[in-house]
Order: sequence, then structure tokens, then C-alpha cells
Amino acid sequence: MRFEDLNWMDVESYLKTDDRLMFVVGACEQHGYLSLLTDIKIPLALADAASARTNVPVAPPLNFGVSPYFTRYPGTLSLRTRTFIAIIEDLVRGAQAHGFRRLLFLNGHGGNHPATEVLSELMNELPGLKVDWYSWWTAASVKAVAAEAGLAPNHANWLEAFTFCRVAELPSGVKPPTPSARLLSADESRALYGDGVFGGGPYSAPEAVMERVFDAALSDILARLRFD
Amino acid sequence: MRFEDLNWMDVESYLKTDDRLMFVVGACEQHGYLSLLTDIKIPLALADAASARTNVPVAPPLNFGVSPYFTRYPGTLSLRTRTFIAIIEDLVRGAQAHGFRRLLFLNGHGGNHPATEVLSELMNELPGLKVDWYSWWTAASVKAVAAEAGLAPNHANWLEAFTFCRVAELPSGVKPPTPSARLLSADESRALYGDGVFGGGPYSAPEAVMERVFDAALSDILARLRFD
Amino acid sequence: MRFEDLNWMDVESYLKTDDRLMFVVGACEQHGYLSLLTDIKIPLALADAASARTNVPVAPPLNFGVSPYFTRYPGTLSLRTRTFIAIIEDLVRGAQAHGFRRLLFLNGHGGNHPATEVLSELMNELPGLKVDWYSWWTAASVKAVAAEAGLAPNHANWLEAFTFCRVAELPSGVKPPTPSARLLSADESRALYGDGVFGGGPYSAPEAVMERVFDAALSDILARLRFD
Amino acid sequence: MRFEDLNWMDVESYLKTDDRLMFVVGACEQHGYLSLLTDIKIPLALADAASARTNVPVAPPLNFGVSPYFTRYPGTLSLRTRTFIAIIEDLVRGAQAHGFRRLLFLNGHGGNHPATEVLSELMNELPGLKVDWYSWWTAASVKAVAAEAGLAPNHANWLEAFTFCRVAELPSGVKPPTPSARLLSADESRALYGDGVFGGGPYSAPEAVMERVFDAALSDILARLRFD
Amino acid sequence: MRFEDLNWMDVESYLKTDDRLMFVVGACEQHGYLSLLTDIKIPLALADAASARTNVPVAPPLNFGVSPYFTRYPGTLSLRTRTFIAIIEDLVRGAQAHGFRRLLFLNGHGGNHPATEVLSELMNELPGLKVDWYSWWTAASVKAVAAEAGLAPNHANWLEAFTFCRVAELPSGVKPPTPSARLLSADESRALYGDGVFGGGPYSAPEAVMERVFDAALSDILARLRFD
Amino acid sequence: MRFEDLNWMDVESYLKTDDRLMFVVGACEQHGYLSLLTDIKIPLALADAASARTNVPVAPPLNFGVSPYFTRYPGTLSLRTRTFIAIIEDLVRGAQAHGFRRLLFLNGHGGNHPATEVLSELMNELPGLKVDWYSWWTAASVKAVAAEAGLAPNHANWLEAFTFCRVAELPSGVKPPTPSARLLSADESRALYGDGVFGGGPYSAPEAVMERVFDAALSDILARLRFD
Repeated sequence: MRFEDLNWMDVESYLKTDDRLMFVVGACEQHGYLSLLTDIKIPLALADAASARTNVPVAPPLNFGVSPYFTRYPGTLSLRTRTFIAIIEDLVRGAQAHGFRRLLFLNGHGGNHPATEVLSELMNELPGLKVDWYSWWTAASVKAVAAEAGLAPNHANWLEAFTFCRVAELPSGVKPPTPSARLLSADESRALYGDGVFGGGPYSAPEAVMERVFDAALSDILARLRFD
Repeated sequence: MRFEDLNWMDVESYLKTDDRLMFVVGACEQHGYLSLLTDIKIPLALADAASARTNVPVAPPLNFGVSPYFTRYPGTLSLRTRTFIAIIEDLVRGAQAHGFRRLLFLNGHGGNHPATEVLSELMNELPGLKVDWYSWWTAASVKAVAAEAGLAPNHANWLEAFTFCRVAELPSGVKPPTPSARLLSADESRALYGDGVFGGGPYSAPEAVMERVFDAALSDILARLRFD
Repeated sequence: MRFEDLNWMDVESYLKTDDRLMFVVGACEQHGYLSLLTDIKIPLALADAASARTNVPVAPPLNFGVSPYFTRYPGTLSLRTRTFIAIIEDLVRGAQAHGFRRLLFLNGHGGNHPATEVLSELMNELPGLKVDWYSWWTAASVKAVAAEAGLAPNHANWLEAFTFCRVAELPSGVKPPTPSARLLSADESRALYGDGVFGGGPYSAPEAVMERVFDAALSDILARLRFD
Repeated sequence: MRFEDLNWMDVESYLKTDDRLMFVVGACEQHGYLSLLTDIKIPLALADAASARTNVPVAPPLNFGVSPYFTRYPGTLSLRTRTFIAIIEDLVRGAQAHGFRRLLFLNGHGGNHPATEVLSELMNELPGLKVDWYSWWTAASVKAVAAEAGLAPNHANWLEAFTFCRVAELPSGVKPPTPSARLLSADESRALYGDGVFGGGPYSAPEAVMERVFDAALSDILARLRFD
Repeated sequence: MRFEDLNWMDVESYLKTDDRLMFVVGACEQHGYLSLLTDIKIPLALADAASARTNVPVAPPLNFGVSPYFTRYPGTLSLRTRTFIAIIEDLVRGAQAHGFRRLLFLNGHGGNHPATEVLSELMNELPGLKVDWYSWWTAASVKAVAAEAGLAPNHANWLEAFTFCRVAELPSGVKPPTPSARLLSADESRALYGDGVFGGGPYSAPEAVMERVFDAALSDILARLRFD
Repeated sequence: MRFEDLNWMDVESYLKTDDRLMFVVGACEQHGYLSLLTDIKIPLALADAASARTNVPVAPPLNFGVSPYFTRYPGTLSLRTRTFIAIIEDLVRGAQAHGFRRLLFLNGHGGNHPATEVLSELMNELPGLKVDWYSWWTAASVKAVAAEAGLAPNHANWLEAFTFCRVAELPSGVKPPTPSARLLSADESRALYGDGVFGGGPYSAPEAVMERVFDAALSDILARLRFD
């Protein structure tokens, strides 16, 4: 139940019986051989699945995030941190004004974490508002799946290589580790990561593993949608 | 050829032979009985069609615009003007840094027009950059189709009732005129427009008319992509 | 009744019986052979005339607007869009705090239109506030005068060549058309427009036509000051 | 030689032989019995006089300044500090882009002083730019005239009661002192100052004194226009 | 009683019986031979002394101020004006939210004065809040001490050469005057001031004079802490 | 070697042979029974120790951070995210302009992490600049010490209870766990955490453990100062 499939009367009806909403935030940035929209596609697929089970609607995804370290990879479109947090603020105020009171942000991109402090600021200002933020790849449940499968999870490697994120053949084998101690500029990132995949794990994983990853994250999301 | 179907290597290859890019901007806002994403769906469909004919890629749509007058209709999520223009600035700088030099913004929403001044500011700052902005419903070609069909075009009426924007049954008949002389607050807008459709024309039009509208706009876009 | 001719006690007295105020916004920018302040002089003259008939006071003009496309013409002083909308916000809040409730912006410059969305945002935030925005050269009434006179109206041509805007001799004859399909940078604008006058019409018009233009706009303003 | 009496060709010509420009900044705020535009009228009159002697042009006045402490006096329209400094930045960059290299700001209002740090920031960024800032009422020369005349100068009292600032009868006699140790809110200011005139001196002074004040400030300005 | 020596329970207790707080603002900037933190050390020493006598706590110092004219002297770290006023705003709102109602800013640096207008804006917005701003070196009492001692006070000369600000030997004798008529860029400042000390007075003064300066400022602060 | 013990000549000398600088960022916020400045005191002590071994100077600490979730605990003074990142930007640009090229931020507070994206943005813009960010309590080395000691580390518990952070008696025993699944508002935080200490570990630890924690972090810092 995405907003794109609803009109305003549908949302008005929904708000008579529920006050939850899912937002999807991610990035338009290099993901090695995968889609530039990988960080949107994954949380959006999770949101769709969670919506199918709970009827909580999904606001349109914010297709751009904060990716300054990848701007030397063509196709990466990064928002400044201050722009990104201004958007988050506008979306939250907008939803709150309509009567939404429990907002779950499904985040697909690490660079978007500055939003979390802004969300705390907004909860202070807007009484009664509850906001949650879920970055699926950092979840204990997902890490456990990876550990069990013996696969090191990382940016643009098998962990994100869902079928729906693939736009090209993936290399076989394992990408060598790409250790980085420091914050990297865009030039340094490109020099270090080459094809854009962070090292230490394989480029792809068996479909069954991907399903377990997806299910683990979905489970977490369903739990969080209870807003206990 | 949307960015979501490409990886960064694809974009790097493309930039060796072309420097054009299409952006899609719109709104998440009430459109009467139509989808909340109507203002994205239409320019995105046009972008897809134009991309199929020219191979010019389409950046991910910016799913939110400036809609302060509709915020009393649930589901409308409006960005502040200053947020919106900050995004436009980031997207343009990002594309320009990769080597894109001719950018066509396909706009689906009237409230986004503050971007045009910012685009002029950016062209002054970034030498060699050409930017165009196309709001399909204001085009002479589209107005001519409407006039020929004898149908008054307006927000959320037949003009936007493409099949792919429909999410509910449409009323039959003609919406009575909704004259407004002034800028309206969100409360005044809701009081005046009721179901959200601007008056003066029918709720829907024959499919043949919709095709002529679409083709007229597509034609314009293909011409603009030549950036003469 | 301009603010410059009043002291604060006068405004306090006025507010006991009325709550209307006119603002004048325009630009300091090239207007071909005409004054750099043309976009202020015209709406200010209209405001003075409307004030004489209604006693509604006129706030000091904002002498700068958003003119990024003309910054290669010396004397053009353009505000960034974000600066301009910040000013508009401050002026509206300031007037509202004193008790003004019906504000009419008389605008002389096309680049200032980003203000209108901000005005809607402000009306949402400040209950009871009504704001109107009038750009005289876009009015149907003014276009009708031009059409009747058979003169194509355009930037810096006869349409703005009121006696009080002239600071030099005007060329005779008609400026050839200057067609522009795209947004233009400041360099492109200067290359295209040359003397700065947009083409398609004569450099001046008979005084009687100018009077009809002025009267048409004044009539509109008087109607809008009723804030029906 | 105000910008309003020039067109862009005039400014282009001027810049071939000179690179100086005067800006006028002030406030729209209560000045007791005097005009709400007193803080513009005085520096503008000085600018006109200096321009007549030097041919240095005068940009249009910025009719609003930073006056938060006077917003309980109707007619005061105060810009936020951040808005004001954004305008100053835009004006300086705009003038510098045309080739102006020596800018003299004639300031009529104490609350505008935050601009001076921003002007230093801009000089660091724009090599070759020289900027001066002159607040006439703080000048040693003006204070000397007041001292010699035995009149305590203050906001809205005789010091600013030039003929061209008067819009009402002035009280006779001396306003009692209005001592203030702290920063004042708008409410506290109104309670303390009553009619808005700061105390300690008379409401008006003989014309001959006013002329000496004016001449002293003009003299300073002419010296500063040499930009030694 | 600095915040660093308190925990939150201590502040909560304090607020049951008092609502005053001292802030210390200054700069990290060149002070000739003296410490880069001179503009913090002096008001912080004064705050400590005042706190010892009154029990009013001292918030942590803001160690950076607005110093654009000194950025060519290594070690100077200047905040943009807009950054500085944003900090001031956040600190005031934060203190007010806890229940502090009387705030005394002890300022050590001239470039920070743009804060005062922002403080007025905040008092307008936050009813019941009283804010005071004290720049010790501009106080009549301090100037009187200097005059009595026959020593011209200036930036980085004897006036600031308290023992606790010294980090190197001071030159003997008097620095020649360094007259400046205009706003200076950082390059111009360094060229004019050389070692960074403003001229006209000696590099140091007898300890007894320094004590009188300190006591004069402390006396002022104690008076202001009464917030009459 | 803190900036407060240096003058500008010292910094100029230093820059002839080295280009490294340490910044200390933290927070003024509740830390249970510990000092409100705990998040500054720890990284500053580490910076001092690292400076003693390497001669790399330490810029003045930024005494305020982003702590929206703790603003219901008196004494917490939180900067908005956008203010904080503006400061970071100014400090980095300022240091870079002097010739510093390798900057190590020692961070004491989790809420400050939005800075890291901004630091990447700045490295993109300022060629040759290397920036590192170290949050001591998240370091593997520190976690290893805690694990080895069998003590769960957390906000304001033993982990931060260095002697130099204590301002009151500490409770004995272990704070019960305080599980939190969601982002919390300030009200929710106070309700959940009570005395402000996050649960799961003891209030204090043996001095020997604290030394090992300190040494582990110091070791990391010394390694990072090599900027390999």
C-alpha cells in the first residue's frame, strides 16, 4: 500500500483507524555492479512486504541520500548533510500535521545517519510523536544470518545482491579486503575500492541466504511496527 | 533507461559519448481521485518514453515538491521552498561533477517553479552547463490539444487522469468552476476545492485525447533534448 | 500614504480601523534603456495611486529581487532565491505582529515568483492572515490593453516605458523577436538580448496606451484591496 | 546619481573610469515623531550630496534593517540578523562581479552592525575588494558638533530631526533621560521609551546645528570615498 | 561553580532557588604575544570570580568567535557570523528550556557583537527571559582605570596582558599607533598590525593596574547579576 | 600543547615542520553523577597525552554537541544538528587555510556523528586535506578492555567514570539494564534512564581498568596521528 496507489481520501480513511506510516530513505550511489538505487530498492521491498502484512502505508521513497565519499563514481548524486536533514524535518512535520503519530524510517544507506539526531529534535518539539529508525544491514538479526552463512557482509557485496538489485553480471569469487582506517574523500574511496564493492566477502550468495536476510529484516520491521 | 537499471559503470560509459540527463520532479500531494504521486507519474512516463527514443538516462524522481496550499489534504507531503531549492542545487552540482552538461528537468508540479531561478544561478556558477525546465501542462502544444478537444484543463481533472494515475473510480460529468482570485492557505484551499479537483472541466477524457496530450508533451521533450 | 511619510503613531492609529497593507517588490536590474529600478517604479506608482484612493498604506519598497539571468548587465544586483524568500518571510511576520491581516504584494519582477509558495506557507502558519500577490504585467486586463493596441508586451519594451521609468532616449521602431526556448545563464542572456530589451514589440507606445495600461492595473489592485 | 536614474549602459560606462559605489542601509522602524524611514533618509541624503560632488553612484537603499527591540512599535519591520547579512553578502558579490572594487556602505541604523564582520569575511574571499562602513551618528566629527552645541545626541531626538525626516509636529523641550543597562526586549523597549525617543536631549535643534551635523558627516564621507 | 564541576542533579537543585546563568564567549584568535585564548581567559576569570561571590554557575565557554580580520595569523579559528549566531540561539533556548530566566553573557571579543541583535530577537520570542551582554573592555569603569593610569587600551596590548594570558615574553616599550580608517581584510590586518598588537599603548602594565582593571570589570558584573 | 598555551607565532613556527592538528569535540550534557563536561574531559585528556608524546597541538575544545535526547536533564545544552555541522565546517576551513593538512577529531559524544559526512564533503572540496575522526568508546581496543574486565560499557557508567570526570559520590553496584528499542524523545529518555546512567554495568570500575581503557584509546590515537 504505497502512497502512489492511494489518493487523499484513502489516507484520510486510514487515519481514522491507524496512525502509523513507513518512510523509505536511501541513496542514489554506486553499488559496484548493482543498481545505483540499491539502497532504495532493499528498504522499499521490505516496506512493501511489511505493508502487505500490516496495512501500514508507505510514503514515496526519498531517492537521494548523503554520499559524499562516492561522488567520484558516476551516477552517485549526493545531498549535502544539511539538505538531507531539512528534508527529513519537512517530511516528519508534514506527516505529523495529518495525524500520523508513529513513523518508522526504513533506511538503506549508512550516510543518512545524521537524520537520527534531527528526529530526536523533532520528537521533542512535536508532543505525542514516536519515531523509529531501522537500518536493516546493521541489525543483529541480519548479522546473525551472515555469520551463520559464513559470509562477511559489506557495501555492495553479496549482502545487497538481491535479484531485484542486479543490473549486470556479478563477478564470481571473493573481493579482497579493502581496509580503511580513516574517513575517505571521494578520490581516496575510488582509489581504494576500485569497482566500488567493499572487500572481505563474495560478490553474491545463494538465494536461500538472501531470503533469510530478507526475512530477518522483515521480522524486525514487523516488530518495530508495534511501536511498543 | 532509468538510473535504477544502471550501475555506475554504465553511467561512466554513457558519459563518454553523451552528456545529457533527465531529472523528474513533482509532488506528493492531493490530486482529487487520482494518485498522490500523479505529479511524478506523468513526467516519469514522459521521461521513460523520451529515454526509449534517445537513450538519455533518467535520474531517480524527486518524489516531493512544494505544496503548501494542499497540506490540509491527508497524504500531501510538502517541502519548504528553501528545502526544495537546496535539493535542486545539490542534484545539479552532483550531475555536473560527473560530466553531465545538458540537464532537462521534467516537472509535474506548479509549486516547484521557484527552482527555475536557482537553475539560472547555477548556470552562472558552473560554466558550460545548460539546463532546461519543462512543465508539460503549461506547454502550448498541450493547451492546443485541450482547446481542440474543447476541454478545460486543470489540476487533477481529466488532464491528469491518465490510466496510470488512476487509483479509484472517477466521477462522471464536469466539476463546476472553482474561481480563486488570491493566494490560498491550506484551509482555504480545502474549503474551496472540496474533493481537490480544480473546476471547469470534466473529470475524465477519452483515451484518444489523453494520447494526444501525451504525444504533444513527448514531442516537446524530444525537441528540447536537442538543446539547440 | 507611504511609510516614509508616517511615524509609528500614525500606523498605530490606522490599525484601529483597518488591517490592510501594500508591499512593493521588484528588482534592481537591467531594463534596456530604462531605469535600473523600473520594476520598483511601476508597482510603487500603482501603490501610490491605490493608496490615494483607499488610504491603505504602502510599506517601503524592497529594491532588490531575484535576477540571476541579468547579472552580466552592469547595475543588476540580484538576491539569491533563498535570501529573497527569507526577506519576504520577515516582512510578513513583522506586519502580522503589528496586527495587519490583509497584505497585498505588488510585484514588478518575474524572478520574484518563488515568494508565492512562501506566502502560502506563512498563511498556514499565521491564522487569519490573508495575502495576495499581483504581478501587473501578467494581468488579463493589461494583456487586453496590449492586444487592443496591437503591441506585443515584453520586458523593457514599450510596456514598461512609462515616462517615470525613462532615463535616456528610446530607440524608435520595433525590436526584432528574441526567441528563447531554454533557461538562460547570464552570459547567454546578454548574448541573446543585446541592449536588454526583449523583442517582438516597439520600444515605446503612445502616452494614451500607457495610461490605459496603468488604469487597468490600478483597477485590478483596487478590486484586490477589497480582499473578497 | 542614483541607480534609479541610470540604465545599465550608464553603469557600464562609469565602470570604465571608476570602481566606487555607495550603498545605503538603514531601517524601517519607529523614530518617535519622525518618519519610519529616518534611518534611510539621512544616509541617502548624505549619499546624494556626496554623489553630487564625486560622481560616485548610489545603489538603491535597502529599506529594512535589524530592529528586534522596536517591534512593538507599529510600522517597524525588522529583518532577522541572518536575513540581513545574507542580503549584504548578495549585494557585495553582485557589485564585485560587475567590477566595482571600492564599496562604501552608508549606514543609518545601529542594529545593522552585524554586517561589518560579514564584510570582512567577503573581503577575504574576494581579492582586491575594499569595503568601508560609515555610521554617521557615531562619527567623532558629528559628536563634536553635538558637544559644541551642548546637545545630547540620541535615537530619534534632535540629532535625527532633519527637516526631511519630519512627518509631524515635534514636542518642545527636552526628553528626560531613559537609562537602560541591559539588552531590552521589544516589550521592555516600548515600556521604557514611551514615545520612542531616547532621552537626555531636546526633540529638535536649530537648523544651523543640523547643517553642521550634515556637513560634518558629508565631509567624512568625501574623505572615505578616497579609499586611501 | 563551572558546569564542568557539576552534574545535572546539581543544576536541578540550583534551579529551585535561582534562575541566573553566566555564559562566556570569546575567540580563538591572534593576540600578539599573548595566548590565542586570551578572549576566553579573561571573561572566564571574571566569571569564576563572580561565581565565587554569587553562586551563579558558569556554562562552558564557547571557545570560538567571529574573527575574519585575523585569519592570516595562524591559530585564529573564526566562525562565520551566521554560525556564531546560530550557536547563541541554541544556547539561549537550551538554558531557557531548563528554567534559566536571567542570562549574562560575558564577552571577550569585539567580533561577537552580532549576537546582541539575536539576543533581542530571542527575548521577544521567549517571554520572561532577561539577557544581558557585557564586553568588559568597553566598560566605562575599565576605560576610567586606563585613563587614570595614562595607558591607551587596545587589542592585545597591556589591557589584555594579564598574567594568566601570557605565554611568552612581552616586548617592552610602547607599540606605535596603527591607525586604520576602514574595515580590513585579513591580509590588510596582518600587513598593518605586524605582531598583531594594536598600537598606541605599552605591551604591559604594572600588576596593580591590571588588578584595578579586573576589579572594575568584576564590580560591573556583580551589579549586572542583580538584573535590576 | 594546547592552543591556549600558544600564541600565533608559535603556531606559525609549528606549521613550518608539521601540519597535524587535534580537535576535541564532545557535549555539555547529563552524565548521571559525573561532570556535565564528561564528553569533553575524556577526549581532552587523551589529546593532552597524545600531544605530550607527539607535539601535535590541540585546538580549543568545542564544549557543546548534539544532545537532543537529554534536554530534559538540567544542564544539558544541545546544539541543533545543523548548527553543529556548520561549526565543524568553519573549524576545518579555518585550520586548512593556515596550512594544517592532517586533522584528527577526538570525539567524546555519540550525538556528534553527523559531522563525519560533512568532513567527507570538506575533503572533497579542499584538496590535500586528510581528516580522521576517533570516538574512543567505540574503538575495538577499548571494547576489548571492557570485555576482558567483564564490565558492560555504557553512557555515564564506569566507562566514563575517570577520576577527572567525578564531581559527586558514585553509587555502588550495577545499574539494571535500560533497554531501548527506539529513538527516544527527551521526555522518554528521562523516564527511562532516571539518574541518567545507561544500564547493564557498574557505576565504577577499578582504577587499573580505567588506566587500561585510557591507554588503549591513547594507543589508537598515536597510531592515527601517523595518518598512514
